[in-house]
Amino acid sequence: MNRPRKGPAAVTLKDLAAELGIHVSTVSRVLHSDTDEARGAASPETARRVRELAERRSYSPDPHATSLRTRKTRSIGVIVPRLSDLVLATMYEGVEEAAAESDYSTFVMNSHDRLDEQRVKTEIMLKRRVDGLILGDVHADSALVRDLASRQVPFVLMNRRHPGFPSSTCDDTAGGRLAADHLWSMGHRSVGIIAGEPYASTGLDRTSGFVERWRELGVEIPQSHILPSPFDTAGGRRGGEEILRLGGGVPTSVFAVNDFAAIGAMGAFRAAGLTVGHDIAVVGFNDTSLAAQLPIPLTSVRSPMLEIGRAAVGLLHRVMAGEDVEALRFQPELAVRESSAPGAVESGRALRAG
Amino acid sequence: MNRPRKGPAAVTLKDLAAELGIHVSTVSRVLHSDTDEARGAASPETARRVRELAERRSYSPDPHATSLRTRKTRSIGVIVPRLSDLVLATMYEGVEEAAAESDYSTFVMNSHDRLDEQRVKTEIMLKRRVDGLILGDVHADSALVRDLASRQVPFVLMNRRHPGFPSSTCDDTAGGRLAADHLWSMGHRSVGIIAGEPYASTGLDRTSGFVERWRELGVEIPQSHILPSPFDTAGGRRGGEEILRLGGGVPTSVFAVNDFAAIGAMGAFRAAGLTVGHDIAVVGFNDTSLAAQLPIPLTSVRSPMLEIGRAAVGLLHRVMAGEDVEALRFQPELAVRESSAPGAVESGRALRAG
Repeated sequence: MNRPRKGPAAVTLKDLAAELGIHVSTVSRVLHSDTDEARGAASPETARRVRELAERRSYSPDPHATSLRTRKTRSIGVIVPRLSDLVLATMYEGVEEAAAESDYSTFVMNSHDRLDEQRVKTEIMLKRRVDGLILGDVHADSALVRDLASRQVPFVLMNRRHPGFPSSTCDDTAGGRLAADHLWSMGHRSVGIIAGEPYASTGLDRTSGFVERWRELGVEIPQSHILPSPFDTAGGRRGGEEILRLGGGVPTSVFAVNDFAAIGAMGAFRAAGLTVGHDIAVVGFNDTSLAAQLPIPLTSVRSPMLEIGRAAVGLLHRVMAGEDVEALRFQPELAVRESSAPGAVESGRALRAG
Repeated sequence: MNRPRKGPAAVTLKDLAAELGIHVSTVSRVLHSDTDEARGAASPETARRVRELAERRSYSPDPHATSLRTRKTRSIGVIVPRLSDLVLATMYEGVEEAAAESDYSTFVMNSHDRLDEQRVKTEIMLKRRVDGLILGDVHADSALVRDLASRQVPFVLMNRRHPGFPSSTCDDTAGGRLAADHLWSMGHRSVGIIAGEPYASTGLDRTSGFVERWRELGVEIPQSHILPSPFDTAGGRRGGEEILRLGGGVPTSVFAVNDFAAIGAMGAFRAAGLTVGHDIAVVGFNDTSLAAQLPIPLTSVRSPMLEIGRAAVGLLHRVMAGEDVEALRFQPELAVRESSAPGAVESGRALRAG
């Protein structure tokens, strides 16, 4: 696993200090202090030696990395797609809670899942001199994480993972398999998947976990039945409407990769005269506080959202301390409720026949 | 309406500058600069005159107000009870959007509606040198807002109002009246109100609007039927359970002061074997994106959440510019859906008789 703190080939203050046989804080003070007073703490001779070696070794401090190294603010910056996504808002509560326990403060910004905004918000956070970043919005094709790593910015990923970088997430593949086993055991052999955005590991892993499990069990889910969609209620509604129009008839079950999308799909099915839990089974993901209280309670794969947020902070502390860290993947559990009650298979088959 | 920027009787840098006949930035530099270099920009004679007058006039800079005055960061701090409350998360999106349009960045923190955390988070924001604050969590008995005003910190309130301070809110009293008129027109004459926290103007105003309107129409709602509760799903669930235990029988209708509480109450009614929209009518508040998609779609009073957040930024800009500003109250609309369909009155009466 890569360590974001170690940039490739860049000469660090530590390297200079080792070569000169003096303390790294002296090197830092000579090269980075704002005031003459602070710079004056080193003797003129030492200062000269530091500067000469820095030039010889092409030491080029990144301005943000510099402020991160030299002026600790005990603050953590958090970037998420949207706080109106209850999942991210809950993870952020875990972050804030754990950070407060270690006397760190946290700030959060929305990137709206746009690559340009991710960069803008990251730079704003770094200008505020946060000590480290927790990114809850990484895209599968993100160049940003590699850039941050080469700039030696301490960061960890949360909610979504990215190969080679430390992350705190749900084991989404396992979650997809749980949903697959459950619907299979209820007798379903046809499913529509509301799969989320194609750039998010959450949706990708949950979907592939489901698809793989059904393949093992003997059913190949056609690509036409795997529908990308935004993660919100409106996206789920559209996904549900597309499922109703699928060629070959309406599947007897639906797996939505998050609860909001599941609720949107339930709205679409209801508008079409179907009763969820009777005519069609629906399974969501995350088990947000709403799922159990819905007029038709929603079966959902529970991810420990608060815990994922808390663990991201622990991971970031270790990254900031220069440790090698592993990706943390929390095990999900299935909460079975009325939306996937027995009966949907027969009723759904009747619909297919009709 | 008070203006938070004007503190009572405090001598300002401007006053000192006027009396000395020099520019305010010079006064500021002499009294507040961090480095000798910056302080050296004024002549020693000028610096001496500034310091003497500052002492004579008992000029006592608030460290936070000072940084606010002298070092603009083009950033706005936002404090909300919980971002996992979809209403506040949506308002914050409006804040972030409008702030970005005027090239400001925003930061948000959770106070969990606790007075001590409100203070802690406010101080953290001010230490980060935000140019102004938007507070989404003011309590009816808050001393904090008065303190901030006397420290000349520019701020506005959002979501909840507080007499004498600028705020951007829904006209919650009008919203309560809309819900009251609707349930009355559907034939209901008994109601339970899930009223929210007693320290939040939102719940108080929505409840009093409802109660007043029914009083005008000829029914006095007994105090026993007005139940304080947290604003979340769990709080609504408990509120619903209390309503089911009310002496004199279960009312035919329920008004919950927010959608999450309404969803929790629907869960309680469902668990008791009641069908919402048939056996009991439920009206929520805010019309969040979930309301329309629920398996039993929820009648709700729509508040323009995004607009309220956007307007808070506009208001803050005016406060920061030293203008007098009024409280903004946005008009709500009623979205009628199946949860308050006709029929609940008769069915509910049968329940009361049974």
